[in-house]
This record gives sequence, C-alpha cells and structure tokens, in this order.
Amino acid sequence: MLKSIPDLRLVGRDRKPEGSIVRVGDVAVGGRRVVMMAGPCSVENVDQLRAVAWAIKSAGATILRGGAFKPRTSPYSFRGLREEGLHLLADIRRETGLPIVTEAMDTRHLEAVCAHADMIQIGSRNMQNYTLLEEVGRLRLPVLLKRGLSATIEEFLFAAEYVASGGNDQIVLCERGIRTFETITRNTLDLSAVPILKKLSHLPVIVDPSHGTGIWWLVPLLARAAVAVGADGLLVEVHADPDKALSDGNQSLRPDKFAAMMSELKPVAQAIGREI
Amino acid sequence: MLKSIPDLRLVGRDRKPEGSIVRVGDVAVGGRRVVMMAGPCSVENVDQLRAVAWAIKSAGATILRGGAFKPRTSPYSFRGLREEGLHLLADIRRETGLPIVTEAMDTRHLEAVCAHADMIQIGSRNMQNYTLLEEVGRLRLPVLLKRGLSATIEEFLFAAEYVASGGNDQIVLCERGIRTFETITRNTLDLSAVPILKKLSHLPVIVDPSHGTGIWWLVPLLARAAVAVGADGLLVEVHADPDKALSDGNQSLRPDKFAAMMSELKPVAQAIGREI
Amino acid sequence: MLKSIPDLRLVGRDRKPEGSIVRVGDVAVGGRRVVMMAGPCSVENVDQLRAVAWAIKSAGATILRGGAFKPRTSPYSFRGLREEGLHLLADIRRETGLPIVTEAMDTRHLEAVCAHADMIQIGSRNMQNYTLLEEVGRLRLPVLLKRGLSATIEEFLFAAEYVASGGNDQIVLCERGIRTFETITRNTLDLSAVPILKKLSHLPVIVDPSHGTGIWWLVPLLARAAVAVGADGLLVEVHADPDKALSDGNQSLRPDKFAAMMSELKPVAQAIGREI
Amino acid sequence: MLKSIPDLRLVGRDRKPEGSIVRVGDVAVGGRRVVMMAGPCSVENVDQLRAVAWAIKSAGATILRGGAFKPRTSPYSFRGLREEGLHLLADIRRETGLPIVTEAMDTRHLEAVCAHADMIQIGSRNMQNYTLLEEVGRLRLPVLLKRGLSATIEEFLFAAEYVASGGNDQIVLCERGIRTFETITRNTLDLSAVPILKKLSHLPVIVDPSHGTGIWWLVPLLARAAVAVGADGLLVEVHADPDKALSDGNQSLRPDKFAAMMSELKPVAQAIGREI
Repeated sequence: MLKSIPDLRLVGRDRKPEGSIVRVGDVAVGGRRVVMMAGPCSVENVDQLRAVAWAIKSAGATILRGGAFKPRTSPYSFRGLREEGLHLLADIRRETGLPIVTEAMDTRHLEAVCAHADMIQIGSRNMQNYTLLEEVGRLRLPVLLKRGLSATIEEFLFAAEYVASGGNDQIVLCERGIRTFETITRNTLDLSAVPILKKLSHLPVIVDPSHGTGIWWLVPLLARAAVAVGADGLLVEVHADPDKALSDGNQSLRPDKFAAMMSELKPVAQAIGREI
Repeated sequence: MLKSIPDLRLVGRDRKPEGSIVRVGDVAVGGRRVVMMAGPCSVENVDQLRAVAWAIKSAGATILRGGAFKPRTSPYSFRGLREEGLHLLADIRRETGLPIVTEAMDTRHLEAVCAHADMIQIGSRNMQNYTLLEEVGRLRLPVLLKRGLSATIEEFLFAAEYVASGGNDQIVLCERGIRTFETITRNTLDLSAVPILKKLSHLPVIVDPSHGTGIWWLVPLLARAAVAVGADGLLVEVHADPDKALSDGNQSLRPDKFAAMMSELKPVAQAIGREI
Repeated sequence: MLKSIPDLRLVGRDRKPEGSIVRVGDVAVGGRRVVMMAGPCSVENVDQLRAVAWAIKSAGATILRGGAFKPRTSPYSFRGLREEGLHLLADIRRETGLPIVTEAMDTRHLEAVCAHADMIQIGSRNMQNYTLLEEVGRLRLPVLLKRGLSATIEEFLFAAEYVASGGNDQIVLCERGIRTFETITRNTLDLSAVPILKKLSHLPVIVDPSHGTGIWWLVPLLARAAVAVGADGLLVEVHADPDKALSDGNQSLRPDKFAAMMSELKPVAQAIGREI
Repeated sequence: MLKSIPDLRLVGRDRKPEGSIVRVGDVAVGGRRVVMMAGPCSVENVDQLRAVAWAIKSAGATILRGGAFKPRTSPYSFRGLREEGLHLLADIRRETGLPIVTEAMDTRHLEAVCAHADMIQIGSRNMQNYTLLEEVGRLRLPVLLKRGLSATIEEFLFAAEYVASGGNDQIVLCERGIRTFETITRNTLDLSAVPILKKLSHLPVIVDPSHGTGIWWLVPLLARAAVAVGADGLLVEVHADPDKALSDGNQSLRPDKFAAMMSELKPVAQAIGREI
C-alpha cells in the first residue's frame, strides 16, 4: 500500500533493510537505546550553557544541542553568538564530554561548524537549500536533517538523498512539526511520519517536540508519544530560566522538568522493548 | 500561555476541574482505564459483525463500533445497511454484552439510533451540523463527537458546547486526524490536540488512529502514541477480511493484528500509570 | 493533464458540454451576464433588509441574499431570525421583485425555506451533510452549493452529484475560500478552482469574496479578479452599518462601496466579453 | 482591521506611502504599466532561449526570465546549465535588449549572477535562507523575492526586510502559490495576498501564475485575475515545445498561447486604469 519511492537510491530502505546506525561522538543513534539530545535554543553565555549541559547530562541526555547561528524571522531579533557560540560549545564539550550538535545556515559556516561540532544540523528553513545539502554531503560529519515546515515526506527523503549523493550517509532525520491551520500549537507534530520514514528509509528518525508544539508543558507528553511510536531519539530545548531566554522560551523546559520527563520516559521506552 | 477560551460555559475545564467520566453502558470513559472501542467501519452482515465482535471482546475491547449510516464522498458508494444495520448491532449487543456506538448523520436518524445504540457518534463531516448537535443535546444518550477535518481545537470545543447547551453533557471528544498537505497518510493525526483538549475542557478525549492515518500497519504504532500522550480511549476499525471490506479496508486491522496490538498497549498504559 | 473524474455521472462536463444555465426567478446564472447576488449576512429587521435590498438593486444586483438560519461557531452567538427572517425576505421580494437566496441548515428547514425562497443555499459546513443534499435533490428549487472549508475540488463536485442524483440538477457552485495556514485573511480564496470546476463540470460557478477574504476592503478587488477569471456570478455581503451588524460586519460592504464596486466591475466584465 | 506589522522598518508602507518603483534595466516595476516577465523555466540551449526571447518580446514582454541554477526536489533531475546558462542569458540580452532575471540559490552564485543578470531571483525554497538574503542586501542589483511555499504574508515581508536591512531596497515581491490540501493544482495561488502586501508594504508585487497553478491552460485565466486584483507584473513560463521541456513543461505556455494571453490582458489592464 505504501509504495517505495523511486530514485531514493541511497537512503531508501531496500538499500539497507536492517537500518542504519549513525555515530555522534561515541553515541549511537538508531540502535535499541533512544537517544536524548537536549540543550538551549540559543547559546547565550558560558554560564548558561555549562549549567544546562551538566543538568541534562545528569538527567541522562547524551548529546548537547545549542544554537550559535540562529535563523530568525525578523532581522532585528537576536541571531546568535555565531563563532563565539561555537567556541563556547567546544569548551563545554571538553568539560562535560557531551558531543555537540549545532546548526549551520550557510555553506560559509561549514568550516567553522566542522571545527567545533560533532554533528551538523540543517534546519527546517534550509531543508531545500540544495547547495548547502550538497556541501554537507561532502563532509564526514554526521548530519541532523530537520523536516521543512511544509515538506512532504517524499521531499524530506529527497533532501536526505541530496546529502547522501554527495557521499555522506551519516544522516539522522528529524520530524519537528508541520504547518497547518491550527493556531494553538506553533506547528502540528506529525508522529505518523516517524514509522513511515523508517519504512521508506534506513535512516534513524528522531522527534523535536519543542518546535513541534511550541508549548513547554506539552513537550514531555509528546516526547512520550514519540518514544511510543518508535522514534530513535528526541531533541528537546532546555533552559535554566525560560522566561529570560533570548529565543524560544515558551517551548523550553526547566532542568527539573527535563529530569522529570526523563524519568517518565524510561518505562515508556521499556514498554516497547527499548531503553533511554 | 494557553488561555482558557471564553464562552465555553459548560464544557470548559474550570466547570469541572477534576474531569468528567462518561458512562457507555457499564463502561466508564475518562477514568484510569483506557477504553478500547473497536469494530468494522460498516456493518455488512450478521456473520461479519458477530465474528468481529467476539474477536475484539476476547482481545479486551469493551465497546463495539459499527456503521449503519455511512457518509460517503460519492453517492454511488456503499452507504450502509441503515435501519437493518442498527438491528444487527442490537442483536450482537445482546449476544456479546458489548455496548454499541454508531453514527447518526441526520436529525431524522436519531430516533432509530437511540432505540438501538448506547452511544451516538457525530462524524467529522457533521461536526458543525448545528441542528444535529442541538437535537443530540436534547437526548440522554452519551455522544461521541469527532473533530472536523479542518476544525480548530476551539471550533471543536464549541461544537461540544452546542451539545452541552442542549442539556446533554455526556460527551466524549475524538481526535481523528486533520487535513494537511501531506498525501501519504489520509489525514495527519494531531496528538498534541489530546492534552490541549484535556487542559481546556473536562471532557474525556479518545483517538481514532484508523481514520487518523488511513494505513492499517500504522494503527498499532499510533495507538501506542495516543495512549502515551494521555488519551482516554481508542476507536479502531477491525475487519475479518479487510481486502473485501465494503469501506475503509485499507485502514482496518485483522482480528489477530488487533489482539497483538492490545497486548502491546498494556505495558504502554502501565508505563504512564493507567491500564487498558 | 486534468483527468475527468469518474462517477460524476450527472454533473460532469461531458454530460452537457455546452454548460448549464440555472434560472433563479427570472435571472439566468451561467450565461453571458455575470450575476450579482448581494445582501446582508443575517436578516436583522425589516428596515435593514429593505434598505439594503433597494440599494443593491439600484446598483445592479439581481438576486437578494440574506441569512435567516445562521450557522455560528458558538451557540451563544446570534443565530438568525429563523422563520421570521424568511417572512421578511418574502416581504422584501414582493416589494423589490428581487429573487431570494437563503440558507437551509437542516432537512427540517426545507419546507419553510421552499415556501419563501427562490434558491436554497447549502453552506460550507453542510457541504457533506449528505442527507440534506439528498433531500435538496428531491426539490425543484435551484441550489447554491458552497464549497466546504477543506473540501477538495473533487469532493465539492461529488457533493453536487449527490444533489443531482436526487433529481435536481439546478445547481450553482460557489467557491468561498479554503482553510490554510495564512491568518491575515479569514480564508484563502481559491480562484483557480473556478476554471477547474467549469472544466470538470457543466454547472455555473460563482465566487463569494466576502467569506473568501473576511476583509471588506479586499472584496471589490477580489470581485474584479473573480470576474476576470471567469466566474458566472458573485455573492457579496452588504450592510448599511457594518459596525453594528449582528454577524460578519468586518467583511460587509456599505451600500456606497457596493455601488462603486459595481461600476468598477463593468469594464472588467466587458474586457473578457461579458457584462454585469 | 489590518494592523501594520511592527518592525517592518524599511519595507513597511508608512516608510514610503506613495509606493516604490524598482528599475530593472530600463523597465520600471511598480508604475502604471503592468510588467510582463517571461521565458523558459530552465535555460536549455541557445536556440531555445533565442526563440523564446524574440517571441515574448514581440508579444510585449519586457523582461526575460530563465533559470541557470535550478532547485530540484530530486538530486537526479536536471539542475540547470549553471554558469553556461548565465552566459547564454547574457548573449540573448545583447541580441534582444531584454533585461534578464535569473535565480541564485547560494551566496557563492552571487558573483556570477551579478555579472550577467539585471535582476536576481530568490526562489521560494530560499525565502528564509537568511544568509543569502543578507548577501543580496549588500548588492546593488534589484531583487525578485518569491514567497515561500508555506510562508505567511508576515514572514514574507520580513524576508524582504532582511534584504532591505542590508542596504538594498530594490525589491519586487512575487506571490507564486502556497501549499494547501488541494492536489489538482500544484499550489493554491493566493491572490488576496497581492493587495494585502501592497497595503502593508511599499514594494511592487507581481504574480507567478505558472508555479501558482502548475497547469498551462490555467495560466492565462489566473494572469487575468492577477492583473484585475492589482498586480504590478506577471512572471510566466514560456517554452517553444513544452512536452520536451527539461523542467516544468506542464505549466509552460507555447509562444502562440503567450501572445494570445497578452492580447487578452490588455483590455483587463485598461479596465482598471492600467496598461500592459
């Protein structure tokens, strides 16, 4: 009933029926363990980043996320610490041992991001920035590819095919909500996409319930659902003081809420034969 | 952040902060136990219905669903056994003891449906059929109200308010997928809606992963996610021979798959402190 | 490239390649003349209705619209004068000679609407209320069928097929905006639907720029576009004092603006070989 | 009712209430004359381009469009002649005198595009490629900015603000259809956006009915509607042999159909006090 999509030569499931494992530092994404990636939307300063990093680590997260280059709707919003943010991420990686995932918005950011990060994120707004995809395809760094706001599943997989066709097949797909008519939530998290992506492709699939809902108290609930539906990991925004966050405060969890969420996710993962 | 909606005088959460329990026959919807409603899309004949009813009962379902009046896009499609279908449902209820939920599409169906069913379903296409909502509001039968294909959460709750304002507050809300640009799935199941509906309203909320996805093998996975996100119940289509079903075969589970799904759902429900 | 849709047995273009003309009173919809239907969203009282009716008539409108039964999202909004509204419409028809189009929301309204109106409107929310469509199919009154908020063009045409299969082929289709992610406008007016509907079906097609935009000052501009794209008519809300309207004031034109719009539409209609 | 959007410091209407005129070569966009930009989706070879260029010029088009760098969903589709395509465009400009508009997909294309083109196009998929927008903001070349597939009007205007905040205010906005649930058309052309954009911003606004519909025979009809609604120009795909086009053949007009469209558009433009 679900036809395989022609021309997914490299990322199609039949290429690797057993599924792929993508290694980020020493963390395996795509195996039995559900991987938690967490951290602030934007890197703001070293104290903020250090506090969040240790907090998420002690709660069980294994990869630190943090934005240095920030895509923002208005040119007058805070747009990230940029190079300085990358240095702070590298510093905190040294301190905590957590591998880093951070976004590159342009081919010209790639060198700097590669120098400091363990995984490079391609954001929703750039899912069809094909020259960026091709350049990332030439790297040896794992890629976190987020679904575009109005990308069909087929278009999403072809974006991954662009990366793979450049030679880099270390790709993790991320469902992060699509744009619909509903306005209470920032986006509509499309959890059906997770098993469909896994059926059509051998790549690991994670879920971002923070952007997917835009509402912090929904995050732990949709995280549970994402684990239950079979996601290989989660990407969650955490901030020590969400009300003062320079971006996305509304959807960020405080560290204590994050730790509580991790506790709640363990039995859900076990219930479906996985761990977190 | 999520403002309560003014004018939800009867179904708003503040009216009943502890939440409502709706009784369907002797089954409580809205309590600790996640309620499984299952059965064929359309009632086709007595043998089909009997076989499915016993199968779902033995697997743990407690309410039998089955369509007698069928809304169909084309006037030339099978449109249900109508009155005869209601009689068959009543017969099988007597045999199995399972309470019945079935759809009424028009005010003129109400008398017949009331005579035979334990719960009356208002389908997606009729979510804003206000005269039907008002008439149902005058009944004493519990109501299963399905979200419209492009209804916002606010419009959905106001449809429930219509029913309640007629005097009938025995209402269960059902998220069943919304219409988006994605075409692989029949609809996009909006699981974020479940906790939002429960925050804004005291009514129980269930999920229909069959219509929500349109693809049978996704149903057990999205059912797991629905339980994990906090749904009070599930509505699932089951057919002994989906390839020969007169409607919705693509999204119907065979009885053995249904039983397997029930087994898988138990530990997920337990993981969040509920049972099924 | 645009395949004809199978099973549109009665409303498909091949059934009547030259196109249909639907007569409403003595007005022909579907001919060379673009027909203007105008009037208040809701009938509020006799003075309001009379003033608007004479104003639109003197500006060149040939059919009076006015809601007696009003579908409203909240049960606590003004829901129309109902039977009394029908009587007022009939009175004003006698005075002005304008044929009347008004909505029926339920099969039980049909008798009263038939007694007073020249054309029966099926609203967007009821486009898939199949029992209503079937009953309307048994009448001899012309039908104005509005596209559902999230109805595909195919579903819209099948709704017309429902009416036609009952024996009534006096149907005018109305594009009135679809639901999308854009929030500045109430709906997104889909003008591409007009020529597609006319290609796939022989029925006349009109456009409602009032509901299609929800913003009064956009109405004359989108009305021009609708005429230019080939619509056979327009349905426009007019109110003497939009700020005090009991419904849809934001999208209603004052009579002077309506008259100005009519003047502007004449050369546009001429430019494409029609008149208004 | 339509609130001005804060922080549109440079492109907001209040900054220049009389509206902007953008000059492309010696063509003024935003004045009384509706500007026609036309040409092939992709530049394929010099003969193809020359034939189309002379054909559209003789029919009244004043700017030649043609893609050298082509964003394509699949990496295995034809992706344009790239640098060679730019050279061909420059050659044909010399021959015909038509100014050229062509797309840049990456900051690294900018130098080459600037060397050959009169106007630089930012495509839908790159509407929120902020580093590209910023770089284009530093150029002195006029910019054709296309609305993203699921961009709100507000997001679209902020993308223009990005360009303007870099110092380049020679921006023309292009409505080209948004993604909705309707599948017969490739996109849903949102003509309401034209007057709203013109109300909120002083920038000229054009319409692309080729991408907006995806169906060639709809193009002339929607072009008429776009002129009627007040667009300052049109962007139309023309190909001598659409069945053999390397991209977008379905939505390309043959030169004779294009010429016929131009004739039909003249009286529509006159009807609203403009010319083409």
